[in-house]
Amino acid sequence: AHVPYLASRYPVEVMVQRSQDFYSLMNQRRSVRFISPEPVPRQVIDNVIRTAGTAPSGAHTEPWTFVVVSDPEVKHQIRLVVEEEEEVNYRQRMGDKWVSDLQRLRTNWVKQYLDEAPYLVLVFKQTYGVVDGGQKKTHYYNEISVSISCGLLLAALQNAGLVTVTTTPLNCGPQLRLLLRRPANEKLLMLLPVGYPAPDATVPDLTRKPLNDIMVHL
Amino acid sequence: AHVPYLASRYPVEVMVQRSQDFYSLMNQRRSVRFISPEPVPRQVIDNVIRTAGTAPSGAHTEPWTFVVVSDPEVKHQIRLVVEEEEEVNYRQRMGDKWVSDLQRLRTNWVKQYLDEAPYLVLVFKQTYGVVDGGQKKTHYYNEISVSISCGLLLAALQNAGLVTVTTTPLNCGPQLRLLLRRPANEKLLMLLPVGYPAPDATVPDLTRKPLNDIMVHL
Ligand SMILES: Cc1cc2nc3c(=O)[nH]c(=O)nc-3n(C[C@H](O)[C@H](O)[C@H](O)COP(=O)(O)O)c2cc1C
Ligand SMILES: Cc1cc2nc3c(=O)[nH]c(=O)nc-3n(C[C@H](O)[C@H](O)[C@H](O)COP(=O)(O)O)c2cc1C
Repeated sequence: AHVPYLASRYPVEVMVQRSQDFYSLMNQRRSVRFISPEPVPRQVIDNVIRTAGTAPSGAHTEPWTFVVVSDPEVKHQIRLVVEEEEEVNYRQRMGDKWVSDLQRLRTNWVKQYLDEAPYLVLVFKQTYGVVDGGQKKTHYYNEISVSISCGLLLAALQNAGLVTVTTTPLNCGPQLRLLLRRPANEKLLMLLPVGYPAPDATVPDLTRKPLNDIMVHL
Repeated sequence: AHVPYLASRYPVEVMVQRSQDFYSLMNQRRSVRFISPEPVPRQVIDNVIRTAGTAPSGAHTEPWTFVVVSDPEVKHQIRLVVEEEEEVNYRQRMGDKWVSDLQRLRTNWVKQYLDEAPYLVLVFKQTYGVVDGGQKKTHYYNEISVSISCGLLLAALQNAGLVTVTTTPLNCGPQLRLLLRRPANEKLLMLLPVGYPAPDATVPDLTRKPLNDIMVHL
């Protein structure tokens, strides 16, 4: 069944202002790799995950699972897996070119934030679904859908004054899936440590492309 | 060089309220397939594309191009390409299962919104970059990065009171790339018609999974 779509509509000047304000807020987002151990209210985490769950998805399959880890022991286990694999990534798998492309970010395989952040959010894509009776259900465009939902998650964190760094820990997926006891249809897509920024947090001095470099108008 | 990260920090109650309000706003987003031809201020479109451009990206490659089409003739050419391919998709390529999975959305290959929406945003992922001298530059995780940026774009549209439907027109990429004269390193990822909802717009009566079905806390 279809139902009427009921929308908020803003007067033009309000709309322009809102679009400007939202851009300013999002433009302050940075990937922060120094996260404070201070506690963050669980309710805020629930709301940002709820927000991620409003994303569109191919054929409305909602192919996402957000594993939110606050247990210090589990966080530490995750750190051990990630650091071990990332050391091999940096030393061998990524190649000189990739490592040099990352130099200005000053990232390496030591990830203190995995112990320190009050929450780690591990985002899994469900590559297929399982319906009653055990039959597999195709999840069209599951990686794109889950990545879009991560975009909403990042927006929600920024709106709440929290920080994260979007990471895709190469080769850690299978081990972390087993550690977190996720089923075989789920594959790790991203790992996001979440919290307040550390008081002395720094970020690489990057700039973003201007509008003219990313938009073409026809 | 690294620079200090300066963040807004909200008192706890404000933070909880902001996370709740943002969730409510995003939860009102729906994919709307009936779009009003009324004009939308160009400034708002510029701001939502700017917002998409604040997304994180693998090794800060910013691998996205947003082609914004308002020319009626170009929109119509796009419609012809998409409808021709989508008819073949629905009749042959997608298979019975996919088509039946889409039934409750009542979508088909007729896409009036491609003529009617004041703007079509065609999102291209740059599968590699080209540096001065013509050498190729790897774009790590370009599809994930561009999908995240589309998540921010959807959030920005919703915040402004505009609607879209996220579409991935199967098999139309190469033709649309040529029509829009985009270079060979760019591949079409999504096509988003943008505007106000039509006054009589309807949407499929879908519900979203509750928090407990998408979040696991450890
Ligand atoms: C990757 C992706 C591809 C999609 N492709 C199409 C499409 O080609 N045509 C369409 O009408 N809707 C498409 N959709 C929209 C979904 O059908 C829609 O998001 C889903 O039914 C949930 O509805 P909602 O967005 O209103 O919450 C797509 C969504 C995503 C995320
Ligand atoms: C798909 C993707 C993967 C990323 N992987 C990592 C990662 O493994 N480690 C890391 O420190 N940063 C990672 N980043 C963060 C980028 O380096 C960062 O977004 C980019 O340098 C731009 O900086 P900004 O987010 O502060 O704007 C990733 C970002 C994306 C979108």
